[in-house]
Amino acid sequence: MSKVTAGIIGGGRIGQLHADNLIQSPYYQLRSISDIHISHLEGTVYEKEAIITTNPNDLFLDPEIDAIFICSSTDTHVDFIKRAAQAGKHVFCEKPVSFQIEETREALQVVKDAGVNFQVGFNRRYDKHFRKVFETVRSGTIGEPHVIKVTSRDPEAPPEAYIQRSGGMFMDMTIHDFDMIRYLSGKEVVDVTVKAANLIDEKFKRNDDVDTAIITLTFEDGSLGVIDNSRQAAYGYDQRIEVFGDKGVVSAENEQNTTVKISTRESVSSDHPKYFFLDRYKEAYVEEVRDFALSILEQKPLTCSGYDGLQAENLALAARLSWQEGRTVTLSELIPVKID
Amino acid sequence: MSKVTAGIIGGGRIGQLHADNLIQSPYYQLRSISDIHISHLEGTVYEKEAIITTNPNDLFLDPEIDAIFICSSTDTHVDFIKRAAQAGKHVFCEKPVSFQIEETREALQVVKDAGVNFQVGFNRRYDKHFRKVFETVRSGTIGEPHVIKVTSRDPEAPPEAYIQRSGGMFMDMTIHDFDMIRYLSGKEVVDVTVKAANLIDEKFKRNDDVDTAIITLTFEDGSLGVIDNSRQAAYGYDQRIEVFGDKGVVSAENEQNTTVKISTRESVSSDHPKYFFLDRYKEAYVEEVRDFALSILEQKPLTCSGYDGLQAENLALAARLSWQEGRTVTLSELIPVKID
Amino acid sequence: MSKVTAGIIGGGRIGQLHADNLIQSPYYQLRSISDIHISHLEGTVYEKEAIITTNPNDLFLDPEIDAIFICSSTDTHVDFIKRAAQAGKHVFCEKPVSFQIEETREALQVVKDAGVNFQVGFNRRYDKHFRKVFETVRSGTIGEPHVIKVTSRDPEAPPEAYIQRSGGMFMDMTIHDFDMIRYLSGKEVVDVTVKAANLIDEKFKRNDDVDTAIITLTFEDGSLGVIDNSRQAAYGYDQRIEVFGDKGVVSAENEQNTTVKISTRESVSSDHPKYFFLDRYKEAYVEEVRDFALSILEQKPLTCSGYDGLQAENLALAARLSWQEGRTVTLSELIPVKID
Amino acid sequence: MSKVTAGIIGGGRIGQLHADNLIQSPYYQLRSISDIHISHLEGTVYEKEAIITTNPNDLFLDPEIDAIFICSSTDTHVDFIKRAAQAGKHVFCEKPVSFQIEETREALQVVKDAGVNFQVGFNRRYDKHFRKVFETVRSGTIGEPHVIKVTSRDPEAPPEAYIQRSGGMFMDMTIHDFDMIRYLSGKEVVDVTVKAANLIDEKFKRNDDVDTAIITLTFEDGSLGVIDNSRQAAYGYDQRIEVFGDKGVVSAENEQNTTVKISTRESVSSDHPKYFFLDRYKEAYVEEVRDFALSILEQKPLTCSGYDGLQAENLALAARLSWQEGRTVTLSELIPVKID
Repeated sequence: MSKVTAGIIGGGRIGQLHADNLIQSPYYQLRSISDIHISHLEGTVYEKEAIITTNPNDLFLDPEIDAIFICSSTDTHVDFIKRAAQAGKHVFCEKPVSFQIEETREALQVVKDAGVNFQVGFNRRYDKHFRKVFETVRSGTIGEPHVIKVTSRDPEAPPEAYIQRSGGMFMDMTIHDFDMIRYLSGKEVVDVTVKAANLIDEKFKRNDDVDTAIITLTFEDGSLGVIDNSRQAAYGYDQRIEVFGDKGVVSAENEQNTTVKISTRESVSSDHPKYFFLDRYKEAYVEEVRDFALSILEQKPLTCSGYDGLQAENLALAARLSWQEGRTVTLSELIPVKID
Repeated sequence: MSKVTAGIIGGGRIGQLHADNLIQSPYYQLRSISDIHISHLEGTVYEKEAIITTNPNDLFLDPEIDAIFICSSTDTHVDFIKRAAQAGKHVFCEKPVSFQIEETREALQVVKDAGVNFQVGFNRRYDKHFRKVFETVRSGTIGEPHVIKVTSRDPEAPPEAYIQRSGGMFMDMTIHDFDMIRYLSGKEVVDVTVKAANLIDEKFKRNDDVDTAIITLTFEDGSLGVIDNSRQAAYGYDQRIEVFGDKGVVSAENEQNTTVKISTRESVSSDHPKYFFLDRYKEAYVEEVRDFALSILEQKPLTCSGYDGLQAENLALAARLSWQEGRTVTLSELIPVKID
Repeated sequence: MSKVTAGIIGGGRIGQLHADNLIQSPYYQLRSISDIHISHLEGTVYEKEAIITTNPNDLFLDPEIDAIFICSSTDTHVDFIKRAAQAGKHVFCEKPVSFQIEETREALQVVKDAGVNFQVGFNRRYDKHFRKVFETVRSGTIGEPHVIKVTSRDPEAPPEAYIQRSGGMFMDMTIHDFDMIRYLSGKEVVDVTVKAANLIDEKFKRNDDVDTAIITLTFEDGSLGVIDNSRQAAYGYDQRIEVFGDKGVVSAENEQNTTVKISTRESVSSDHPKYFFLDRYKEAYVEEVRDFALSILEQKPLTCSGYDGLQAENLALAARLSWQEGRTVTLSELIPVKID
Repeated sequence: MSKVTAGIIGGGRIGQLHADNLIQSPYYQLRSISDIHISHLEGTVYEKEAIITTNPNDLFLDPEIDAIFICSSTDTHVDFIKRAAQAGKHVFCEKPVSFQIEETREALQVVKDAGVNFQVGFNRRYDKHFRKVFETVRSGTIGEPHVIKVTSRDPEAPPEAYIQRSGGMFMDMTIHDFDMIRYLSGKEVVDVTVKAANLIDEKFKRNDDVDTAIITLTFEDGSLGVIDNSRQAAYGYDQRIEVFGDKGVVSAENEQNTTVKISTRESVSSDHPKYFFLDRYKEAYVEEVRDFALSILEQKPLTCSGYDGLQAENLALAARLSWQEGRTVTLSELIPVKID
């Protein structure tokens, strides 16, 4: 196999992004896209490049297809993962795998039994800035990590309909930060403590959700992590990390649109950070699917496994519980996430 | 009165720093320095510029003296404050006022009854970088603060003897950050949640102390604060703040020794932050005593009052309790800090 | 016409770069690539996507082809431009158009008479950083430009064989900077003064060339420009500009590989600039051919015309003369560059 | 001698600045200040700390005085230097020594014959940023310097009366940059080429002066230097240097007022550079007189000698000639600056 023949389930924003990347990638042959609605795909480059269908079974049954990208709504993930795995297809699934840890666990068990590759879409692991932070930590340059800090703020609050289906801020947004902090640490989290608030818009409160949070984590070796989240940063997408260790500190700042600086009598100004994830993580999305292809074509180890998806979900659940009960939640209180 | 005639109690490092600044200040006439040991002051500029005595009463009884700077060990503060205030002297006291909130309250009551000015040595309020952050917040440029972040790391851990007398990290080191976060917010804190660890040196644990912490605060309006502390940052003194609001964010980075940048095939390097507080806050210490003088000479309002000292101590106590009991501590659980 | 059908003459490094971009562009259909040697193209993506030929006439005679990209060696440009234009093809030509200003003038006359579009490959005009500087200048934010500064240093000296065919540093390398400085200024240059040296390698001197230079320009309104060039910067590709005006200054710094910063006891380091033009100007090359397509498909005005190519060449010739004769050279001394 | 007893001739802005620094310095005892007008010094700290006189002879004849600071108008320097040196006083003289190179040479000869120390007030050599650049160059980190760049722009144009007495921009302003570039290079300049303009205000032209210039220098080893000057930068004092060598580059950026950064939907802004020389070079002025004291008290070598003053003047004269005649001027055309 010189290329991975792929199908995509879900033709929305993220499905189209992956489709664009697969079309341009030397590692993939995009074969099919399925969606329950297909009218918005008619006459587009997708229709020209791939078979468009409303029936995901067309993908599971297609012997040409090696791998399936699941980009549909979260409530459909588990079912599609199981069917894809049982059909012998490798699976790439957007985050979160599901809102129910037990269901996620079951899906991953099916994946394991089927012996197919499974990757969760934690795209930020492939961001070149964060990747370099990771490598610096692993190289020992900053010594043993003592405190890992993640700042993660969206440029604008999502619409209420999105909030209702999102699983809440911790499951929808912080889940990326939980994964990042685990990735950088290389250690497991033992407890989670959340202070959260509704400061931006009443629509979050109406939906039993928060929009602002400080989340503190203790790792198994006693080191600490802290995430600060906001659903709305007026100046744009704010994505920074810092790992402080006993020999030094490494950090990644926001990527600005340009390096231009303007100085006048009135002000000294520079450029805004890249506006949102499609822009900031554009290259990371390309790297992400490239890595998945190499796990299939060359049996390279996966950077981001099902277990990573499960752990991040578990942390999101722990965070929600911590917020609701106003106390530190230990991970051992929750359902164990082992896959047999 | 065109100048404040001042005496200093305590001729150690911080007492000498203030003595240097008073000598060079156009607002002060330094008259006396008292210390239990005076041999280290003999033959110095201090002996030339001021009366050196082992008896603090010489200062309280000296009718020439307008103001007394208390720079002796913390356990002597309360007694000296009372005696100075009762002698009608204005009082500048190093932080913390005491380790016992009730004693601090009593001292401040005596100060209030005596009608003298009282300032606590929270020098960072006078740092030009932090001052500009404060002014930016007050100007409304970044809107209502949602999250205030303080990073505060010392360049090297103190010796064990210091740790034993320090009152613990929260009372000795974080107290500055508690004051800064109250100063920037302009709101009172309602609860404190601490995750702390001993990661740097066993000597902290031996003395029932910590060396690393994440401290989350909730303000009365529901907004959040977070402080991250370490007793030892290999790369130097790390003192940064960030205030995130609904209209933007303002931050102050570390001040570097120089603006020099060196690029070679091997590396692109810039300069370290200023090494420690004597260097980083050099100008702030000058501003601090200038402000105190103006409160006496021109009745300007104090930037940093006894009440601010009391509140910061209370937060330090709450932080310690939160760490010890592994839970969020509400300020209302503690002794009220009102001064009648 | 919904897409521009294009042929490329010259299948070397720059020809392949354009081929890659045309293949991925929604604005182009790549039809043919001609080169005198084609063995290196066999079995590549180019052979799959395009007709490969050793005969450029195949392109001139192909009625399907709308536009021809001339990426062959400089000594062939003029002949190919004329033949392409006479065949009614739009022409994109790499810089410089030729080493002989009179030949360039003739080629452009043929282009003009044929009524086809002609663009010179000054890719840096499409760099997002420089473009923003340009727009800031045009917006009036920094007032009238007084001094325009360009720093342009290559990461490593070219091989001697390249130097021999390059036309010299001014024609090969500085020509980009001459174009940039004219682009930013919007004014014509009236005189050129060069101080140049051979400091890097004897191979430049052996070929009657220089490797280091300071080039000062006077614009028609009396304002000044200065370019500093080096053929070898140990730390990588250095591409910065600054426009200083009566109301302020605008500058573009180098783009770094990542925003990562590492601080230890020993050093505070950040990342290198992007290594060379293929990396730094990757997006600019895409924008460049997009603009050319839009000039054909939508009759949008060209950003970079034949006249711009001619003027930059003229400045390169003036610079060489200034260096050789050790004096300021006025442009009026040279052959006028008007096209009838 | 434990302190240098000093007198100051000239009680204007720069004389007062030195007086302030001498008063606060542990290395000096300020004894007298002479000025032709003394009413502005009455009732000031200067009157309290020093003898105020209208007669400079009081200083030359005072046996207590070890050193004299000449801060009077340039046309008086030479006479005062000679008289001070002949009286056996060490001399610190503000720049330039004189407007006539021959007079400067004579004055320095008298200094040499008298065997006293002589320092010229090139304060920028003591700026911590530029000092670090100097040390980096000397350490070999960036290899052999190929190009040295100095950007030097004042925040506002001087009044016309000042222009008339200034000796012209090259002698008044660029002289600092000539000294800096010699200091950094460690090599002598062999030729100077100037392109200058009058772009800011007619008052410069009226006084046969310029306000904007690009000055290119060739050093004795063939390496190059370039200075860009403007008399008026709307955004403040712009003082940057860069030394590019065969192994790397080192630069010093402007020092900003604070490290504060503010990001909103509308803009990302940081602070202005320090406004002018009194602010930017505040510490450098302290270091400068400290070094002069140590040359007297401890026979430490001078950082900035009479020869350095002479060479910088010579470069200013060469620059003016180059501008007037529109050609490169070699230093060998001018009067040799050797002191016997």
